[in-house]
Amino acid sequence: VPYNSLVAPEDLDKVRAVRWDGGGLLLLDQRLLPGKVRYLNLRNAGAVAQAIAEMAVRGAPAIGICAAYGVVLAIRDRYARNPSTWRRDVEADVELLGRARPTAVNLRWALERMTSRIAACSGGNPYRELLQEAEAIHLEDIQANRRMGALGAALIEGPCQVLTHCNTGSLATGGYGTALGVIRSAYAERNVTRVFVDETRPWLQGARLTAWELAADGIPATVLVDAAAAHLLRRGAVSWVIVGADRVTANGDVANKIGTYGLAVLCRYHKVPLMVVAPSSTIDLRVEHGAAIPIEERDPAEVLFCAGRRVTPEVEAINPAFDVTPADLVDVLVTERGVVLRPSAAKIHGLFDESARSA
Amino acid sequence: VPYNSLVAPEDLDKVRAVRWDGGGLLLLDQRLLPGKVRYLNLRNAGAVAQAIAEMAVRGAPAIGICAAYGVVLAIRDRYARNPSTWRRDVEADVELLGRARPTAVNLRWALERMTSRIAACSGGNPYRELLQEAEAIHLEDIQANRRMGALGAALIEGPCQVLTHCNTGSLATGGYGTALGVIRSAYAERNVTRVFVDETRPWLQGARLTAWELAADGIPATVLVDAAAAHLLRRGAVSWVIVGADRVTANGDVANKIGTYGLAVLCRYHKVPLMVVAPSSTIDLRVEHGAAIPIEERDPAEVLFCAGRRVTPEVEAINPAFDVTPADLVDVLVTERGVVLRPSAAKIHGLFDESARSA
Repeated sequence: VPYNSLVAPEDLDKVRAVRWDGGGLLLLDQRLLPGKVRYLNLRNAGAVAQAIAEMAVRGAPAIGICAAYGVVLAIRDRYARNPSTWRRDVEADVELLGRARPTAVNLRWALERMTSRIAACSGGNPYRELLQEAEAIHLEDIQANRRMGALGAALIEGPCQVLTHCNTGSLATGGYGTALGVIRSAYAERNVTRVFVDETRPWLQGARLTAWELAADGIPATVLVDAAAAHLLRRGAVSWVIVGADRVTANGDVANKIGTYGLAVLCRYHKVPLMVVAPSSTIDLRVEHGAAIPIEERDPAEVLFCAGRRVTPEVEAINPAFDVTPADLVDVLVTERGVVLRPSAAKIHGLFDESARSA
Repeated sequence: VPYNSLVAPEDLDKVRAVRWDGGGLLLLDQRLLPGKVRYLNLRNAGAVAQAIAEMAVRGAPAIGICAAYGVVLAIRDRYARNPSTWRRDVEADVELLGRARPTAVNLRWALERMTSRIAACSGGNPYRELLQEAEAIHLEDIQANRRMGALGAALIEGPCQVLTHCNTGSLATGGYGTALGVIRSAYAERNVTRVFVDETRPWLQGARLTAWELAADGIPATVLVDAAAAHLLRRGAVSWVIVGADRVTANGDVANKIGTYGLAVLCRYHKVPLMVVAPSSTIDLRVEHGAAIPIEERDPAEVLFCAGRRVTPEVEAINPAFDVTPADLVDVLVTERGVVLRPSAAKIHGLFDESARSA
């Protein structure tokens, strides 16, 4: 009997990083993982914006969901303070939340969806309506991840080993994960037998978070330094590289965690297919190509320090949080609306048209 | 006046990691840098072997020099204990030193040179003769580095920025450095204006050691996580990638610090030339190609820990210390015997033949 013969995808989804507890937002503080499991209790929009900026929560979809709940908290406060001006008052909170991280588009997407819902409010206390909208965003994200998990896993012939970068799991999303959702589904189908996990400096999302999720689910995982991935690819140990995305442009270019672009070049050189898994809320049709995506430059201290200790002498450092992978290096883009092979502007627009037609 | 108008290469060489103090070997403990500058005082061959295995000293040429001094210490002890059997007795010490690190060939090269010198000893106390041989190995390494610095720098048109990986400087050699020696010389010639330094996980040789050497010499340096190099190359910020080598095979394949191979692929993709700088003691004519080089697998704890703190949950890790770059990805190999463009077996053999002819 194979070791994972009794595993269903539902069994591989034990973590929730974002929870609404009735009075506020409970947020698993990812800065402390895997050493400590501690939830922050956020009661206002400012605290949510700060948690996003300081990366207590990270991952494009999770950031969007948190921002939506942040709007709910803002509306509760603004309406209590002045029921006649709350619509205007809350705009400052939406703007504050929108500035928390610049690269991932899901944040803006979620805020725009909440803003549209605000515009549609008929009158009276808007709290319940907006909370329902935030909860819908959250639930739809989990459903999209399940769907992408099935679509992506269907492409993977096994048994094989895969490699992933950063964290794209339950911690980065509403639950289940994007790239890690595909890996979970493919593991349940016995097609993935081992996951190589880039540690993902400087923040170590792979070593700290992805390894923690995979260990919790009992999926065999092997951590490596980012610079060892090429060596593994050359040795033929990896059949797929599977990553998430923070923003996909109209032509299919992909902004994702720093290191993704280098992996994409290595994939092409070694003829290993690259799969990008991202919900349609990550696709930004208003931006034509990757060069127009703002790349967040984070504090050099994240590079100069390692696990809380200063490792360098007095020198400069650069800390670009993301890079851009051009569409022609992406072999497959998996969204909840369907799978796109070798993405292009036409195919990406078609994805939205088709969904509109079938809806 | 350019900021480096008064700099001569001699001014850019302030560090010595290996010193013979008359009674033993003083070794700068590189595990503690840049926080603490502390020299180990090694008085016997076993202590030298341990220091090499535990990476108190690292870098292919520096390891070879230390091993040579280790043989001197062994001979002093063996001869004092039994002047009639020391030649046979010292073989165990040579073997112990040879096992300390498997990938760099300079270690074996230095031990073979010391063994030949032992064979040539006429009689009486061999200590002085062998010490002279070790000191010659040390001095010749510095001279080779100066020569390579000039040869490599002559290829660099500036002003430009370069990227390096790991540490190949005074700390990795007898002094001045291989790849970092070329960078020092090119900086003195005002052709290199900034050095991008891969931090080089897991051991952080770049962030800890190369940054420290460059800061000491006042050469502008910028540290980055290894996975950000591709992003820099894509942006056109880097004109050369310059690295060292732990072993070069007869056909020109290069074993070097993990991550070098990935950089080589990225260089080719972005049409950025890759320069490998290594003294001829690094070239192993007895090994035909890179697949035959033993790749040291070090303790996974080096990956699972970061700056002394455990960062991962209970998962596996792999920790290959080196990778192999095939010769066809190397644009220039710089040795003290001359420069080889696009190395091949014929060109590498020619390098040794020509030197023999001109010698």
